[in-house]
Amino acid sequence: MANTFGQLFRVTTWGESHGAGVGVVIDGCPPRLPLTEADIQPDLDRRRPGQSKIVTPRKEADRVQILSGTFEGQTLGTPISMWVQNEDARPEAYAEMATKFRPSHADYTYFAKFGIRAWPGGGRTSARETIGRVAAGAVAKKILRQRFGVEVLAYVKQVQCLLAHVDPDTVEARHIETNIARCPDAAAAKKMIRLIERMRQAGDTVGGIVEGVARGVPAGWGEPVFDRLEADLAKAMLSLPASKGFDIGSGFAGILLTGSQHNDPFRAKGGKIHTSTNRSGGIQGGISNGQTIYFRVAFKPVATVMREQATVDIQFRNTTLKARGRHDPCVLPRAVPMVEAMTALVLVDHALRHQAQCGG
Amino acid sequence: MANTFGQLFRVTTWGESHGAGVGVVIDGCPPRLPLTEADIQPDLDRRRPGQSKIVTPRKEADRVQILSGTFEGQTLGTPISMWVQNEDARPEAYAEMATKFRPSHADYTYFAKFGIRAWPGGGRTSARETIGRVAAGAVAKKILRQRFGVEVLAYVKQVQCLLAHVDPDTVEARHIETNIARCPDAAAAKKMIRLIERMRQAGDTVGGIVEGVARGVPAGWGEPVFDRLEADLAKAMLSLPASKGFDIGSGFAGILLTGSQHNDPFRAKGGKIHTSTNRSGGIQGGISNGQTIYFRVAFKPVATVMREQATVDIQFRNTTLKARGRHDPCVLPRAVPMVEAMTALVLVDHALRHQAQCGG
Amino acid sequence: MANTFGQLFRVTTWGESHGAGVGVVIDGCPPRLPLTEADIQPDLDRRRPGQSKIVTPRKEADRVQILSGTFEGQTLGTPISMWVQNEDARPEAYAEMATKFRPSHADYTYFAKFGIRAWPGGGRTSARETIGRVAAGAVAKKILRQRFGVEVLAYVKQVQCLLAHVDPDTVEARHIETNIARCPDAAAAKKMIRLIERMRQAGDTVGGIVEGVARGVPAGWGEPVFDRLEADLAKAMLSLPASKGFDIGSGFAGILLTGSQHNDPFRAKGGKIHTSTNRSGGIQGGISNGQTIYFRVAFKPVATVMREQATVDIQFRNTTLKARGRHDPCVLPRAVPMVEAMTALVLVDHALRHQAQCGG
Amino acid sequence: MANTFGQLFRVTTWGESHGAGVGVVIDGCPPRLPLTEADIQPDLDRRRPGQSKIVTPRKEADRVQILSGTFEGQTLGTPISMWVQNEDARPEAYAEMATKFRPSHADYTYFAKFGIRAWPGGGRTSARETIGRVAAGAVAKKILRQRFGVEVLAYVKQVQCLLAHVDPDTVEARHIETNIARCPDAAAAKKMIRLIERMRQAGDTVGGIVEGVARGVPAGWGEPVFDRLEADLAKAMLSLPASKGFDIGSGFAGILLTGSQHNDPFRAKGGKIHTSTNRSGGIQGGISNGQTIYFRVAFKPVATVMREQATVDIQFRNTTLKARGRHDPCVLPRAVPMVEAMTALVLVDHALRHQAQCGG
Repeated sequence: MANTFGQLFRVTTWGESHGAGVGVVIDGCPPRLPLTEADIQPDLDRRRPGQSKIVTPRKEADRVQILSGTFEGQTLGTPISMWVQNEDARPEAYAEMATKFRPSHADYTYFAKFGIRAWPGGGRTSARETIGRVAAGAVAKKILRQRFGVEVLAYVKQVQCLLAHVDPDTVEARHIETNIARCPDAAAAKKMIRLIERMRQAGDTVGGIVEGVARGVPAGWGEPVFDRLEADLAKAMLSLPASKGFDIGSGFAGILLTGSQHNDPFRAKGGKIHTSTNRSGGIQGGISNGQTIYFRVAFKPVATVMREQATVDIQFRNTTLKARGRHDPCVLPRAVPMVEAMTALVLVDHALRHQAQCGG
Repeated sequence: MANTFGQLFRVTTWGESHGAGVGVVIDGCPPRLPLTEADIQPDLDRRRPGQSKIVTPRKEADRVQILSGTFEGQTLGTPISMWVQNEDARPEAYAEMATKFRPSHADYTYFAKFGIRAWPGGGRTSARETIGRVAAGAVAKKILRQRFGVEVLAYVKQVQCLLAHVDPDTVEARHIETNIARCPDAAAAKKMIRLIERMRQAGDTVGGIVEGVARGVPAGWGEPVFDRLEADLAKAMLSLPASKGFDIGSGFAGILLTGSQHNDPFRAKGGKIHTSTNRSGGIQGGISNGQTIYFRVAFKPVATVMREQATVDIQFRNTTLKARGRHDPCVLPRAVPMVEAMTALVLVDHALRHQAQCGG
Repeated sequence: MANTFGQLFRVTTWGESHGAGVGVVIDGCPPRLPLTEADIQPDLDRRRPGQSKIVTPRKEADRVQILSGTFEGQTLGTPISMWVQNEDARPEAYAEMATKFRPSHADYTYFAKFGIRAWPGGGRTSARETIGRVAAGAVAKKILRQRFGVEVLAYVKQVQCLLAHVDPDTVEARHIETNIARCPDAAAAKKMIRLIERMRQAGDTVGGIVEGVARGVPAGWGEPVFDRLEADLAKAMLSLPASKGFDIGSGFAGILLTGSQHNDPFRAKGGKIHTSTNRSGGIQGGISNGQTIYFRVAFKPVATVMREQATVDIQFRNTTLKARGRHDPCVLPRAVPMVEAMTALVLVDHALRHQAQCGG
Repeated sequence: MANTFGQLFRVTTWGESHGAGVGVVIDGCPPRLPLTEADIQPDLDRRRPGQSKIVTPRKEADRVQILSGTFEGQTLGTPISMWVQNEDARPEAYAEMATKFRPSHADYTYFAKFGIRAWPGGGRTSARETIGRVAAGAVAKKILRQRFGVEVLAYVKQVQCLLAHVDPDTVEARHIETNIARCPDAAAAKKMIRLIERMRQAGDTVGGIVEGVARGVPAGWGEPVFDRLEADLAKAMLSLPASKGFDIGSGFAGILLTGSQHNDPFRAKGGKIHTSTNRSGGIQGGISNGQTIYFRVAFKPVATVMREQATVDIQFRNTTLKARGRHDPCVLPRAVPMVEAMTALVLVDHALRHQAQCGG
């Protein structure tokens, strides 16, 4: 199931960077959901290269086509197959990749595993693979919104040492899209954009943190003991290219508090339970508690830099490599829709699992 | 598959804290592995309460019994069923739990999900559930050691703000077991033990970081794209009780570097490839690259503190709750065998998956 | 997942014939189902050896114990672990099996696969393995009855050439249990019993057909395209020891009709749809249509006969083997609860899957 | 996983009859297998409508395109996505299907399950869905042949009461393709063709039996206890449209023998074991024993007949329906490549599973 994610809302992605295209099959989608390409394309546009001056300039329209699973604008309950044709294949830009392993890329490990690799554009290791995830995530987000009243958001929380101040309980999608950094803190966004531009000019790259948020998740989603909601979120996030870390609620910072400081007191009001703080991040014992779910994902600086680097060739001889042409100075703005997509995939899967065992 | 972990080396745990016992079934274990209870018990002893003055004093011998899957001291290739009988059930200590939800525990979320919960001892949410994991992990560690030459280790890296200095490339199991903190940095360990004791006396708790290490993993384990090795490790770690975060290699700290600083140069020597730094943490593009795998897991301070706390009862009325008797001032020393177990389960599963697709 | 059955109502069995015991873990059971050993034991008693003069005389009480997953007589939604201790281990009766492969048993194939086998009592290949299935099936039957109004039955339809006349639409459980052959056609049952007794005296064995029935299944259970309801039933039945064939509705006999003769006309009455014939066997296109589901399972004559047979030993030399002591002249009466159990496991799994995707 | 088959060689099909196309994604294919469309197309041509006078005349070229998973003519180990565009959509021929349920089709059950259905051409219930299976099966057959020396065949064994005489141990692929009935018994084939033609002229349909064969399977494939090789074959076959039954080896006929007659004696010769008869059908205890695997699949007469039939409309009112235009008088010749495909999918999956647990 290497290329499949989810137990009940099952998403299988396929495709290499410079092959015919990339796509996804969703199995298990509930029937009678209104769905057309117009529900999918906006998120692909947020993921697409060339959307702003601070992301990689590869020219791809990334137009999605739904091949199956809908009829007269509604889902059938059968597999939804979607794909995007590849356009901007420039194998010449990758000629050196045929014979050399790019440092901190997956070139060598794919070769070690499979004994073969599609070197043009990085093949399956290209971020183009996430097109399928984002397309499926758009479907998942729609189900969550329409059937469960759940909203999923993500935004850039930190670029290198530039930290944004954002309240997960109140931030809105429209705030995130006000700038090309996808950071709802306007002042921080301005500095982030400047930093990324400087990196682009220097041929270097920079990483940071995307924060993911889900609001409106009812108490009760998540499965003891291995498929805890935060465990599946962690897996989802660490499956994204360039991600190196995940924490939820108080996360790594929470270890500085004692238990009596850290606990979230329960409070009752009008026959409902809430917690007066939310260091748990909306999940306790692997199951949602009705509070806002929020977590952070660390993305390393993109490996492709416009500088000569020490590496080895496919004959296992020492050499150097310098990337040519274009590079992506910061993956974060484009990672935002990816984080949203993976969050939505986890949540809709757990919503259906909860419905299966506990009846809704 | 909520209570099952793994695709090919499949582990299913069962049991409530105050039920008849807790156990595990392993399906998919290779045949003809020498295996007796003596292979399992030592790790259970490291996990067991009452092993030292800095962990919870619950009295449990935790003697494991293998019920199936072996014959004349060797595995059969059939399911290995193991269990530990529960002994120290003191329902009276938990009487208040019958009617109140403990803050930052899973009492409320289990109730919200299932409409029923086994309140004595926390039922399925008790850390006793990890007995099954640790038992299965001991089998996985033996397979990794004997069949693949892979060594799995974990140790306490940080308690609150006390940080240990440990080299993942050279630390040995015997260094970890030299003190009850399971921290191979003797000076740091001394301070950690003192801090935890202070917490115990104060009726409070403290969290920290366990670092996990796998050495000898050959290049090629891990699956693109969703079942990346680090994604499965992240899930495994976030499925442990009280864990709040995971990062690998440079992790969250890596975001402060630029790409050109962060990349690990490849070097060739004697027909073999290595990297001269290891910010990748031994995994690139989801697949092991032959370097040491190392990662960190953040554990929050344990929720049970000996102080009165605000909470609600099962009629959703505000009230307070004060835990009685004994508490676990710091989960970290006992989390060490859990982290090792989950690491081993992930690795052996990926070893078998690699063998299936790529032939060994 | 070799020893696990089901997607959402997941059953994992374990245990060898002469090991400590045999058992099962159920994961995914809905919470708040009243459940005690008294719900399970009756079906185990129907499966148990020594229950009548026409089955194998091995002496086993087969007392089931629930180890987890219930609290105060109700299911928790957590794994239900059940087991039965082995009692009547007589390794001496199996001494020859240590060195010889029994013809048409699984001795040789297990050895070829695993390079090791638990020869006493046949180890994992013993019919004792089905104890776990029957125990889990009893839970599944209770869910089907209480939550979905579905009744599952099976009975002996044919022994060698002795055919019973039974109407799947009206047969009741009490009719089946009126005789030790578990055949609701009393006249046929009498002849069957006589035939089986003759076989027992002759040291030989005889096979036949068990028919399985499910009534009250609503239209809509079953999954296109691979997990058709009849496909999962077929797998379930062919996973039973000694089964050699499965057909549903008109089955193999249906090939003698033309399409215009074979089709089941739909009829409407009072806002409901039914079919005026039921050659489809209650399933069309893999999904239940609301009519009675009925199918047949062919069981070969049991391989253990009290006669000398040509075989080979574990050094791959030709030899002969004669079973000693006791044998099972006909597996059919004991296969009845097994067929019911597997039917119930398939149906409850599909009920939950339907609930997950289509909301109940 | 409704639309996914297999554990390690995982096949997911998608597509409706009158949608954009039908396709399949294979996950888990071993790397470095030579593979182009030329390996796939021949089996699609054997499955395709319009190939002879005795099958349905729908005009479809069914040209397959590989979209991913190969590079320079070799598999990459990444998902192989293949598809066939739909061409011959004639919705007008299906106009009545919009408002009426065809008897013994899946129209009603899909509607009952999903509350929506793609009525043109039967949507997902169309036999066009099997294109994905046959394409994936062609890959599986190539792996079996090249990597394991296993040959998979199927042929028409019986049409209505016309029975062919074929020896599963010696029949060859070229014998099967000598006539349009795909029956290697030339005399029987002639009669079958005549019968089917008569049926076509009469606007009626006829069913029968396809026999599947696998030769060269080494002893040891198959998994106790639920995933027995015959159990997975049974599921695979019963997942094919119009199939109603499956039996293996002696099958339903074996119940007429006693155990002493039915057992297959083991014989040793030159350090190898074989059985002198093969009533087991090449599988014992769920695991292959090295002998030829052979089994039968019953297919009912196709439901679409050119006669007026009683049925109901989507308002649940009684009415009649008469199919228009073209029909498929006998599914058997086109079912042959489907049976081969599903057999190959089961076997290659078990080959990889065996390799995973037992090392090859």
